Amino acid sequence: MAIAHAVKDALASSSMIRKMFEEGIQLRKQHGADNVFDFSLGNPDIDPPPVFHEVFVKLAQEDEKGSHGYMQNAGYTHVREALAKKVCREQNVNIDGSYIVMTVGAAGGLNTVFKTICNPGDEIVVTRPYFMEYRAYTSNHGAKLVEVDALEDFNLDISAVGAALNEKTAAVLINSPNNPTGKIYSAGVLAKLSSLLTEHGKKTGRFPYLVSDEPYREIAYNIDVPPFLSCYSESIAVTSYSKSLSLPGERIGFIAVNPAISGKDDLLNGLIYATRILGFVNAPALMQRIVGSLTEARIDVSIYARRRDAFMKVLNEAGIEYSTPEGAFYLFCKVPESKKGGHENDDKAFVEHLKKYLILGVPGSGFGKAGWLRFAYCVDEKIINASQNAFKTAVENW
Amino acid sequence: MAIAHAVKDALASSSMIRKMFEEGIQLRKQHGADNVFDFSLGNPDIDPPPVFHEVFVKLAQEDEKGSHGYMQNAGYTHVREALAKKVCREQNVNIDGSYIVMTVGAAGGLNTVFKTICNPGDEIVVTRPYFMEYRAYTSNHGAKLVEVDALEDFNLDISAVGAALNEKTAAVLINSPNNPTGKIYSAGVLAKLSSLLTEHGKKTGRFPYLVSDEPYREIAYNIDVPPFLSCYSESIAVTSYSKSLSLPGERIGFIAVNPAISGKDDLLNGLIYATRILGFVNAPALMQRIVGSLTEARIDVSIYARRRDAFMKVLNEAGIEYSTPEGAFYLFCKVPESKKGGHENDDKAFVEHLKKYLILGVPGSGFGKAGWLRFAYCVDEKIINASQNAFKTAVENW
Repeated sequence: MAIAHAVKDALASSSMIRKMFEEGIQLRKQHGADNVFDFSLGNPDIDPPPVFHEVFVKLAQEDEKGSHGYMQNAGYTHVREALAKKVCREQNVNIDGSYIVMTVGAAGGLNTVFKTICNPGDEIVVTRPYFMEYRAYTSNHGAKLVEVDALEDFNLDISAVGAALNEKTAAVLINSPNNPTGKIYSAGVLAKLSSLLTEHGKKTGRFPYLVSDEPYREIAYNIDVPPFLSCYSESIAVTSYSKSLSLPGERIGFIAVNPAISGKDDLLNGLIYATRILGFVNAPALMQRIVGSLTEARIDVSIYARRRDAFMKVLNEAGIEYSTPEGAFYLFCKVPESKKGGHENDDKAFVEHLKKYLILGVPGSGFGKAGWLRFAYCVDEKIINASQNAFKTAVENW
Repeated sequence: MAIAHAVKDALASSSMIRKMFEEGIQLRKQHGADNVFDFSLGNPDIDPPPVFHEVFVKLAQEDEKGSHGYMQNAGYTHVREALAKKVCREQNVNIDGSYIVMTVGAAGGLNTVFKTICNPGDEIVVTRPYFMEYRAYTSNHGAKLVEVDALEDFNLDISAVGAALNEKTAAVLINSPNNPTGKIYSAGVLAKLSSLLTEHGKKTGRFPYLVSDEPYREIAYNIDVPPFLSCYSESIAVTSYSKSLSLPGERIGFIAVNPAISGKDDLLNGLIYATRILGFVNAPALMQRIVGSLTEARIDVSIYARRRDAFMKVLNEAGIEYSTPEGAFYLFCKVPESKKGGHENDDKAFVEHLKKYLILGVPGSGFGKAGWLRFAYCVDEKIINASQNAFKTAVENW
């Protein structure tokens, strides 16, 4: 027997990020962990905040009867209520727990949303560069990802998004703070996007959903991440605790829905149904209870801020241009001009070149943006500082 | 905006089991928990074994650095190795951890398998009655579920399975111990199934996978559940700890693959890729580590055995026929003859009738078998015994 053709094809061109992850493991084995500058994966190395540990131990010691059993597919009622309160504060809306569905991380949440809203052949509009897994998250459910380019400063190009809309548009997907660029869309930009979608809806009779993937909402540097849900009635926020509590391996997140969304019952029941049939069934029970009682907690963002600054210094010294991140923990950098000529714009070649200096990054092509590359700075500041010479030498020999 | 047509249609006819779950909550509120005989949901009420609690507390107290981060999508290497050893013992095969993929429960595992192996239009053959979610698990990935009837004693009808095979058959799906019938397929039956598939493969050039959904493997009553993986080279076992460790809400399970399976690397890489893009990303980290160190543990099956016996006594007294369960924790029962005539075979009407006596079960139609109904006995023995009069009166007034 053979596997599905589509899966076989995908394996051949599978995620560069994960490939780097595996190569990183190999290189560390070969050269020692301290000598490899692995900026490839967004796997937070900061531990969850101390209050996480307290609640974790407390729940383990209590180990209440029935606490590992099924609950309603949408998640525990008390957890959904607690998170709804948090969402009200952050998103400037007034919702209760019935607008929340607990998910297996943001990746599980996005699959759940697209399963719920997409008819075969529907389109999801996304702005390039974008997290490459979006492509599979939409095609999984028979939808097509339609890509438009960001502006030069990586802000949303509202007119480009507008030009991509048609009657098949089920949703526009945004991601702010953005992976890979670190961009945060302002309230003004969101308002323009909202007007665009409202106009389009009035004209065509189909108001696209606006879906925000925002696991980095709590990681921003001296800049407010504006409320998203309140900007447009047909809005759906998807988030996780992978970054804000450093729990990516535990797979816990949630979906929150605008209170004025049309067909609320259908949509919520659809999301709950999709959670069930996609095989998530429900978000992991223990982690639901933990995040439900940690609505005020987050990791210490100043650690990422210091790393960001240290990394920008390293890049400045090496002569690599980048987009200054406003949030998240990635530096999106321009491939420098090659002294040898011939592949200035070749991010894959530059990433291969960097590997010789034991620096691991991800080609921008992996995000739909050739000529650029991404470094994740969710690694120890010492590693960032220690990479200075490697970066300089690598650029000098490029 | 509206949700997807397919989801909207599915909501209209959504899972009867879950509907009963919600109704059970309402009835308990109304009449008090002790007065409702809720046998609708397979949500184990037995607590995980004491050793689970020990490991849980130990891991919480240690809360090792990085232990909530990403690992390889297939799961922790040491956990996969530990589970491979367990599989070797139970399944009479010789595999290492590379043949194991950790999953978000068996539901996540089955979705992962079907995503990996199904081309659009492919068929999955299943024997009726069957767990109704299989329908969505296959249609999610563009495949079609082809149903054949079991023999009268709920054993596999090998020739019926044979008649359903064709060149589009990607897999035959079995479930033993079976939900809802409690049937366990013998080694002899599995051998016949294997011969059938081998013959079909030789004739057509396409050897269907044989997929076993076996979360109930460890719950059997004085009968050995024969090894499955060793019966056929193209075999894939999918299991979870939802029943054997009573952890359904924690979503932890795994896929194990026959060591002689064709195209092993493609298949395993495909399963790992599907785990990632379906949004599971990886099975929950903490629960992976817990089950990896609990390979000898299971809940006390004798508790279910006693409940089974108590329930059979209740049904005998009430005059309800059933299939004696060999494993799992369900009693599949025949709708009794109606004294009023007219709906002998109407399981939905009988389930409605039982509700008047505060007894909750699931219509057999929900499993593709009208005229029958399912009671789950993962509830306290006291509730089972206390239901005696309600059952008798219900049948007398039917």
